[in-house]
Amino acid sequence: MASVAGEGRSRVLVIGGTGYIGRFIVAASAREGHPTAVLVRDAAPADPAKAAVLQGFRDAGVTIVKRFFPSEYGNDVDRNHAVEPAKTVFGGKAHIRRAIEAEGIPYTYVSSNFFAGRFLRSLAQIGVTEPPTEKVLIMGDGNVKGIFAAEEDVGTYTIKAVDDPRTLNKILYLRPPSNTLSHNELVSLWEKKLGKTLERVYLPEDELLKKIRAPLNVALAISHSVWLKGDHTNFEIDPSFGVEATQLYPDVPYITVDEYLNRFL
Amino acid sequence: MASVAGEGRSRVLVIGGTGYIGRFIVAASAREGHPTAVLVRDAAPADPAKAAVLQGFRDAGVTIVKRFFPSEYGNDVDRNHAVEPAKTVFGGKAHIRRAIEAEGIPYTYVSSNFFAGRFLRSLAQIGVTEPPTEKVLIMGDGNVKGIFAAEEDVGTYTIKAVDDPRTLNKILYLRPPSNTLSHNELVSLWEKKLGKTLERVYLPEDELLKKIRAPLNVALAISHSVWLKGDHTNFEIDPSFGVEATQLYPDVPYITVDEYLNRFL
Repeated sequence: MASVAGEGRSRVLVIGGTGYIGRFIVAASAREGHPTAVLVRDAAPADPAKAAVLQGFRDAGVTIVKRFFPSEYGNDVDRNHAVEPAKTVFGGKAHIRRAIEAEGIPYTYVSSNFFAGRFLRSLAQIGVTEPPTEKVLIMGDGNVKGIFAAEEDVGTYTIKAVDDPRTLNKILYLRPPSNTLSHNELVSLWEKKLGKTLERVYLPEDELLKKIRAPLNVALAISHSVWLKGDHTNFEIDPSFGVEATQLYPDVPYITVDEYLNRFL
Repeated sequence: MASVAGEGRSRVLVIGGTGYIGRFIVAASAREGHPTAVLVRDAAPADPAKAAVLQGFRDAGVTIVKRFFPSEYGNDVDRNHAVEPAKTVFGGKAHIRRAIEAEGIPYTYVSSNFFAGRFLRSLAQIGVTEPPTEKVLIMGDGNVKGIFAAEEDVGTYTIKAVDDPRTLNKILYLRPPSNTLSHNELVSLWEKKLGKTLERVYLPEDELLKKIRAPLNVALAISHSVWLKGDHTNFEIDPSFGVEATQLYPDVPYITVDEYLNRFL
């Protein structure tokens, strides 16, 4: 009914739609025939006044939206040992987490680790745009494990989580087992596909830290967090705060690093 | 079609849906049968790659959402002479304005001035919950004009603005002529309804500033901005940045202060 009544009128989403002024905006929107949705903290509030407001919305054909996914999609911003400038970037996202929690807004945080499209083409080197064929720069000793996820799969797992009670107020981690590998293992996989051995140049931590600082380089600092500090894999996912995507959705045929690398041959 | 396919699946709104990871989330959402909407900066981008992404969304039945209304609904946060703590509150909202503009997100800011429900019951006194029948406290000389708008009308004008090209990237001011009056005029109106004269106690600015500071009182500081500095009415609305609601929508029968006060008799 809303979509017929709403022909030609924009869809309206009200964040805070049961609040002091939000409820009047929602009422006007529904009355004027806009397909209307509200983001609410609690779709079944104990407070009878709030419950009555929500029932009024439902009677008016308003859609109740129940969960917020802030834009994160990288490291877990609450569990890392990042240096600047990544520290500040992660800190900003953690600050948004705290605001969401303080407001009691239902959430899912998605920690998808390395984007395959950004980090695999260069074989996890920063400032490189093509896959290496001669030489590859490895940060640290190359034995710390990082995690990659194809962007398509980040989309799929995120959307799977939308209506899933198991991901409510949890961090959804993407840790596809086949995509959890060290920089050395990644290089070996690529060497096998190339049919040749690359020269591996190892960058010690102190030199990496110097490169991160002058000028400040956020991609290098994130790489430091992952390859030197192990921040993709150095903690267990406790059910009190998190769930793992490939375990929740074993039927999703995720793209493996092995398959993804074939795109660059 | 989206609503049938989406039965039982939550509505999904993606902010930044044409971005690096957003587009994959939108694609997964539409594919999984969620009624899906995206907030975009530009619904007809010149960049052919962005245009192709948007066309793909439309082909998948995705709704394009085009404008953001941040939560403001008070003073114009860019045009005021507020003292602390109101200065910081307004500054926070101005900061959000700058972020919206920097990102190129289409917007409308609604400056609705005083909420009638919050400010009329007390006859614009702070910390008072019932209409005065003997004595009324007036800040300053009581001759500076402020503006009131009923919450219902704030909702109505806001929603009128949603699809109106005249309010795109503009501040929508609510300045209903019948609701623009000084504190003295407001008291006189109430006295006429009561059929008696109230004792008017005038609070000079220096005493008001002391009351604002100990302890910090945001409602008093906003009142200072309005009744001492005249921030509801001390500037013209230039078409380059703003439009006025009752002029844009003369057919909306707004609730006057005179009518609103009858609720308290």
